[in-house]
Amino acid sequence: MIVSIFFDIDDTLFPSSEFAELARRNAIRAMIEMGVQRSEKDLNGALNAIIKKHGSNYPRHFDDLCRKMGIKRPARYVAAAVGAYHNTKTAIQPYPSVPRTLLALRESGYRLFVATNGEATKQWDKLIRLQIALFFEDVFVSGEMGEEKSPGFFQKVLKKTGFRPKDCVMVGDREDTDIAPAKKIGMRTIRISTGKYSGTLTKADVRIDNFSEIPKTVASLKSGKD
Amino acid sequence: MIVSIFFDIDDTLFPSSEFAELARRNAIRAMIEMGVQRSEKDLNGALNAIIKKHGSNYPRHFDDLCRKMGIKRPARYVAAAVGAYHNTKTAIQPYPSVPRTLLALRESGYRLFVATNGEATKQWDKLIRLQIALFFEDVFVSGEMGEEKSPGFFQKVLKKTGFRPKDCVMVGDREDTDIAPAKKIGMRTIRISTGKYSGTLTKADVRIDNFSEIPKTVASLKSGKD
Repeated sequence: MIVSIFFDIDDTLFPSSEFAELARRNAIRAMIEMGVQRSEKDLNGALNAIIKKHGSNYPRHFDDLCRKMGIKRPARYVAAAVGAYHNTKTAIQPYPSVPRTLLALRESGYRLFVATNGEATKQWDKLIRLQIALFFEDVFVSGEMGEEKSPGFFQKVLKKTGFRPKDCVMVGDREDTDIAPAKKIGMRTIRISTGKYSGTLTKADVRIDNFSEIPKTVASLKSGKD
Repeated sequence: MIVSIFFDIDDTLFPSSEFAELARRNAIRAMIEMGVQRSEKDLNGALNAIIKKHGSNYPRHFDDLCRKMGIKRPARYVAAAVGAYHNTKTAIQPYPSVPRTLLALRESGYRLFVATNGEATKQWDKLIRLQIALFFEDVFVSGEMGEEKSPGFFQKVLKKTGFRPKDCVMVGDREDTDIAPAKKIGMRTIRISTGKYSGTLTKADVRIDNFSEIPKTVASLKSGKD
């Protein structure tokens, strides 16, 4: 019988990629408003190259961008960019059906958890801003667990929580970090078709298009295969 | 003839100390809401000790606070605290008469500048969030100038801008960092009675209670002593 459900955060609980893209665009527009004499296209290209090189958690994207563009006394432009970026990132909202679905799952008696890659404080900040942190009994973040989501990560999580794999479902948007490793250790899996990977193949038990389908999907897993 | 006016930022253009205090209180309340089993008073006391030790620009106040309180897996509490802190800090507003007074001064032909201690990006972030950055021709920040506000700092600023000291006014709330060093090199000075130092003595040319008094005060300096 399914007793607990684990959720990925980014592009599963909220449109993370869309907000990241918008935050970068708003940052670049703020730099131009502050007086940088470059086109949005040029700045976007240069920023994407920096993100590609250093990853999206690198804290000095806009300092590097100013240096790359030969901007002297960059503080005003960095402040404008970082301010606009954070204004956008702090305005994140969950996918529309997420809060009421989480509440319904709690009412039905399921125990809910988060299993996510990233830096623990940053991932908690997202749950708090999305106003859904209260629904989760615990949150497992790779940065705190010492390894990225993998069969080993999920084994540690199950050891900590005391569940059998077959009594757990993992819900996520990515085959490589959500579905494959959870499936490997015997958890049930639901692949949600949101975010940039929505078109790719899945070996999950079920594929759904909308978060609101989770209650009936989990119920069918319960009666069907246990 | 007075041609240019230099402004301090914190507690001169906006109630910086009030926002900092409120931000810390909101952060501590958010930690308690997230489940920390300590009183507001205890947490406040511990936080103030950390700020006293490391200064207010230290980036790990809340990590240290959690460690000091013996909190395990602190990410959720740090995220709650930092989020609430930043939510408060991003809501800063200028003293009510500041924007219209800056506009009136520009209309009267004065050239406006900022002279402030701090880290350049942080000080720019404040001006942008206060929505008054556009009024200033340039912004001189100790972090970029290589020294705190002092006679040397103001001499560098005047060299860069090409003004004679007697044609410039410095407006600020602090005797030690605003009035004394500017006066020392021959600038005119206006001490504004806002913030926590409002009760202390001044040797400024004029003392004012409200930012809106600046236009007539500067006009009187111009006609009276040049």
